[in-house]
Amino acid sequence: MTAYEIISKKRDGQHLSSEEINFFINGYTQNQIPDYQMAALLMAIFLQGMNKRESQALTNSYIHSGKVLNLDHIPGIKVDKHSTGGVGDKVSIILAPIVAAAGVYVPMISGRGLGHSGGTLDKLESIPGFCVNYTAKQFIKKLEKNGVCLIGQTSELAPADKKIYALRDVTATVQSIPLIGASIMSKKIAEGIDALVLDVKTGAGAFMTDHKKSLKLAKTLIRIGEEAGKTTVAYITDMNTPLGNTVGNWIEIVECIECLQNNGPKDLMELTHRLSGTMIYLGQKADSIKAGVNLSKELIKNGKAWDKFLTIVQEQGGETTYLSNPDQYPASKFSVDYLSPKDGWIDSINAYDVGMSAVLLGAGRRKSTDKIDNTAGLRFYYKPGMLVKKGDPLVTLYTSKKKTLDIAMKKVAAAISIGPNKKSTYQLIHQFLDKSGL
Amino acid sequence: MTAYEIISKKRDGQHLSSEEINFFINGYTQNQIPDYQMAALLMAIFLQGMNKRESQALTNSYIHSGKVLNLDHIPGIKVDKHSTGGVGDKVSIILAPIVAAAGVYVPMISGRGLGHSGGTLDKLESIPGFCVNYTAKQFIKKLEKNGVCLIGQTSELAPADKKIYALRDVTATVQSIPLIGASIMSKKIAEGIDALVLDVKTGAGAFMTDHKKSLKLAKTLIRIGEEAGKTTVAYITDMNTPLGNTVGNWIEIVECIECLQNNGPKDLMELTHRLSGTMIYLGQKADSIKAGVNLSKELIKNGKAWDKFLTIVQEQGGETTYLSNPDQYPASKFSVDYLSPKDGWIDSINAYDVGMSAVLLGAGRRKSTDKIDNTAGLRFYYKPGMLVKKGDPLVTLYTSKKKTLDIAMKKVAAAISIGPNKKSTYQLIHQFLDKSGL
Repeated sequence: MTAYEIISKKRDGQHLSSEEINFFINGYTQNQIPDYQMAALLMAIFLQGMNKRESQALTNSYIHSGKVLNLDHIPGIKVDKHSTGGVGDKVSIILAPIVAAAGVYVPMISGRGLGHSGGTLDKLESIPGFCVNYTAKQFIKKLEKNGVCLIGQTSELAPADKKIYALRDVTATVQSIPLIGASIMSKKIAEGIDALVLDVKTGAGAFMTDHKKSLKLAKTLIRIGEEAGKTTVAYITDMNTPLGNTVGNWIEIVECIECLQNNGPKDLMELTHRLSGTMIYLGQKADSIKAGVNLSKELIKNGKAWDKFLTIVQEQGGETTYLSNPDQYPASKFSVDYLSPKDGWIDSINAYDVGMSAVLLGAGRRKSTDKIDNTAGLRFYYKPGMLVKKGDPLVTLYTSKKKTLDIAMKKVAAAISIGPNKKSTYQLIHQFLDKSGL
Repeated sequence: MTAYEIISKKRDGQHLSSEEINFFINGYTQNQIPDYQMAALLMAIFLQGMNKRESQALTNSYIHSGKVLNLDHIPGIKVDKHSTGGVGDKVSIILAPIVAAAGVYVPMISGRGLGHSGGTLDKLESIPGFCVNYTAKQFIKKLEKNGVCLIGQTSELAPADKKIYALRDVTATVQSIPLIGASIMSKKIAEGIDALVLDVKTGAGAFMTDHKKSLKLAKTLIRIGEEAGKTTVAYITDMNTPLGNTVGNWIEIVECIECLQNNGPKDLMELTHRLSGTMIYLGQKADSIKAGVNLSKELIKNGKAWDKFLTIVQEQGGETTYLSNPDQYPASKFSVDYLSPKDGWIDSINAYDVGMSAVLLGAGRRKSTDKIDNTAGLRFYYKPGMLVKKGDPLVTLYTSKKKTLDIAMKKVAAAISIGPNKKSTYQLIHQFLDKSGL
């Protein structure tokens, strides 16, 4: 068995055995197979695909490249949520304290933003002092104590994925369903969960812009999860429009605070409650998803989710001062309004363009080594389906980079389409799927 | 324009512009684009293909990565031959002196053996002192003086090809028609020729085992050559059976000596005369291919080709002692006969298996850094269509590696198939093609 033979096989559309997949992934992780051979294999997988058995084997080989956490000593069903990423998606930060407040343990490993999409870790780190880098041991300890811990990918869990993801990112092999599937599910399975709720985004601002592909990805993820013995369910949700009213880092934390204080926007709260309600149900703290959603709403109203959030921030080294007084947070150098160019109804707000505008303002990264400006971002005042008048401020843009403000403004202008008639408002949650739908 | 965008475009089956191809090839040659991005692009090209315009642009970008020799000061039509490689293919070494003796200038850049296939350079270097490494300037000087010079690929000509070929070799992206086309034609066009005769091999021991693909490759090569203003013609010839009776390095030089002394095997001489006759015709030293073939035969008979060969060896620093007395050349440690296991007719001799047997004996390379044993090889005593008796020696194997002799012997045994009836003898030259056949 050689790397060359395995590349040739996949290149010719043949199926790889588990032994071949393990040989290649282990060899690459241990630096015995060079980047260029992995790059050739990744492109061959991208173009020739993988069947169910190969996807499973790839995920297993990612999982066994590192530690698999054992959380059996923690009582009950441990549940996590994963979103495939988008613009303005801050759900994890609101949902984790809700679900933990319901008594379900939430071991959560999140990612960073790249390109047009934001990342939970970057948003959390805009809270001064908030630490997302813990060892597996520290992670488990915090989870035991507080019922929830939010961290970044550690080098202990699924190191193969970390190394391969970095290579996919520069070889145009990111959007491949078997590669995405193994990447997402290996990390989740290695973190020791019992159940997982997936939020598979679809639309302009998602990695899968097309509903059919999103559905295929959702099914692949559920299949991998269930075969590994984890209850896995998925929602396919809209990412044509940014979620909530804010895009950026600290500005999204501010919106999370509003949500946790029962003052969040309708779309963001609807999705959060559905996902947290589902987690609570899977965590056996409610008899149905509906009952879980009701409990989720209750935990916002009675302040328990907010209290849990404060505890999380304190436990992970963050300062809580700004959480109670967001206005005291340092401001960006510039804040400029984009005014409506005409009277009419908001038809759409293109999430991809908004995400790229946020990058231009300094809130995101073009490449993984770029630095982020916590104070940069956008706040929207309207959603699709709302009536606007010429001259109304539609968005405020925050930045400290005067140079790119104009282009960012143009991107926002291009993102917002205003028509003469009210179109039907957009549907946020498209579809629910569990193993019965495979 | 970024490397990432170009990879994505080809991955999605789109056509690349000449600017995009130049950007990528130049960036890679100048070490600005890393191996792993080139590996991803190569696999995308392998699987998505390239159209005629892209093939042309790729070849041009290879050509302009280095020097393009100008041979205008040398009178007449400069003609080269290129074979896509096989087992026992020593034609260049016999043909170059013939064509030069006819008065046609032959600037010839050859390759080394790899895997089952042999290389002209390795065979020439088995002549003690023979040098194949000259600068472009030295190459031109020798060509002017002697009418012919046989060298290896210099780093001055088409350096992009050299670097990319090494990467293709380890990423399973060798057998792609646009990549093969650019690789072959860029070197030939950069060496300053006016016309080119191609010998596109087909069958078990060729890189293209299938006639349809060989035909497609031949057409691609002719198209690229003609668009660059070089008269280009191709023969599609058999490589199911090794060419001639010997496979190895010095042993093939011995066979070349026999050929040049009018004592060569029928198949090898038939192909050599056809190719050299075509070169003589393209070089305007004969009025037709047929007249060229006749002149080629004449130059063997009258000893002028042999004289030219001796001059080439002397001019390139080789010792001529062994050429007149091949028996004085150092012998391999072991020489063992493989005897016919039964009475019957030789049905076939599988060139690929014979090539791999030669590698095992020490005559070839598994990887490009392996050393070659000049004295290792095989001499066959029968061709397909001949009658053999049980116990007749069919082949002698020469090696200094006792360890692998047994496996090499088994490979040879498996290569030779003997049947109860005489089958029709094989056809050596399948097809002639020029631009009128595109």
